Amino acid sequence: MDSNVLLKQISFIKEIDKLKYIQRKTRLFNSDRCENDAEHSWHLAMMTLVLAKHADRPIDVMKVLKMVLIHDVVEIDAGDTFIYDSTKDHTNTDEERLAAERIFGLLPKEQAREFLDIWEEFEAGITDDAKFAKAMDRLEPLLQNVSNDGGTWAEFDVDYQKVYHKKQAIKYGSSTIWEYAERLINDSVERGILKKK
Amino acid sequence: MDSNVLLKQISFIKEIDKLKYIQRKTRLFNSDRCENDAEHSWHLAMMTLVLAKHADRPIDVMKVLKMVLIHDVVEIDAGDTFIYDSTKDHTNTDEERLAAERIFGLLPKEQAREFLDIWEEFEAGITDDAKFAKAMDRLEPLLQNVSNDGGTWAEFDVDYQKVYHKKQAIKYGSSTIWEYAERLINDSVERGILKKK
Repeated sequence: MDSNVLLKQISFIKEIDKLKYIQRKTRLFNSDRCENDAEHSWHLAMMTLVLAKHADRPIDVMKVLKMVLIHDVVEIDAGDTFIYDSTKDHTNTDEERLAAERIFGLLPKEQAREFLDIWEEFEAGITDDAKFAKAMDRLEPLLQNVSNDGGTWAEFDVDYQKVYHKKQAIKYGSSTIWEYAERLINDSVERGILKKK
Repeated sequence: MDSNVLLKQISFIKEIDKLKYIQRKTRLFNSDRCENDAEHSWHLAMMTLVLAKHADRPIDVMKVLKMVLIHDVVEIDAGDTFIYDSTKDHTNTDEERLAAERIFGLLPKEQAREFLDIWEEFEAGITDDAKFAKAMDRLEPLLQNVSNDGGTWAEFDVDYQKVYHKKQAIKYGSSTIWEYAERLINDSVERGILKKK
């Protein structure tokens, strides 16, 4: 392997350090400190390792791990978009596509292509691997908000209908996890930390 | 799968959120902000994905990913030990073992056993997978310190001999990456950001 390959990889490794500065809206468990994208991506990877066997259909765990580890890297350029922000499209905007090309493009060609393909597969959300990765991405903030007495739901006045709609992505990955998630959502309404309008 | 399995897994997933509060000594690239263990673990996972082909011997990338993702979880109870702290043993202290048993022990039995085994394999550092994982763990702070004009070397008065000795772990994972790392260390001496005593 020529040393140019390694140098390109190192430049990518340095660049993605910036993900640690991208703040999400959701906060850590029982906390008022916002989570950043690197922490979030690590947590999704751990959840994937732990929960993979609950997938309804066979998944390639390695592929899902790659998806959750890289899925937010584009936010280094495009920034984090709040999932309940109705003024912005959340998937595959031009800005995110440009970001993916620039950042993954720091890698040697073959690897850049692989990462771009994986990111696109995640964004499209059609394959079983992407569905499971998206289930992880929806579950973490649900757990966080419940632990934070409503968290971003309370903070940004998000109601039950919106939450229920977005969280259904969990169902397409795992019926067992969805059953648990649905119960959490309903319990949150009962506890008064999620409003039905 | 019974629902008790999922509940145990969720309790583990919540517990490991605490890794985001464990501060390392090293700082982010070109920054004075300390890195935390969750960010660090994510970065090592990304490095593993990107650099796996430089391993001198065949490695099981999935196993290495698991190692780097979980390797610092014990620090939730045991705290971060600075690698150049000569007053403390760095591997497999009683405190870390207890932490591993408590935290991985939140998981269903079979999964707890798997994670404990992987953590032990990493700590022992004997297998090719563990050697590559440790190479990643040594490379990241090297890159950070070089980008921070010496970083923790300058801050804690660590000299070339100590750095060279610790960083040799990289050699046991990949001769290509070691060649690059060795050059970085020597360049750091020339630049005056790492002292030879």
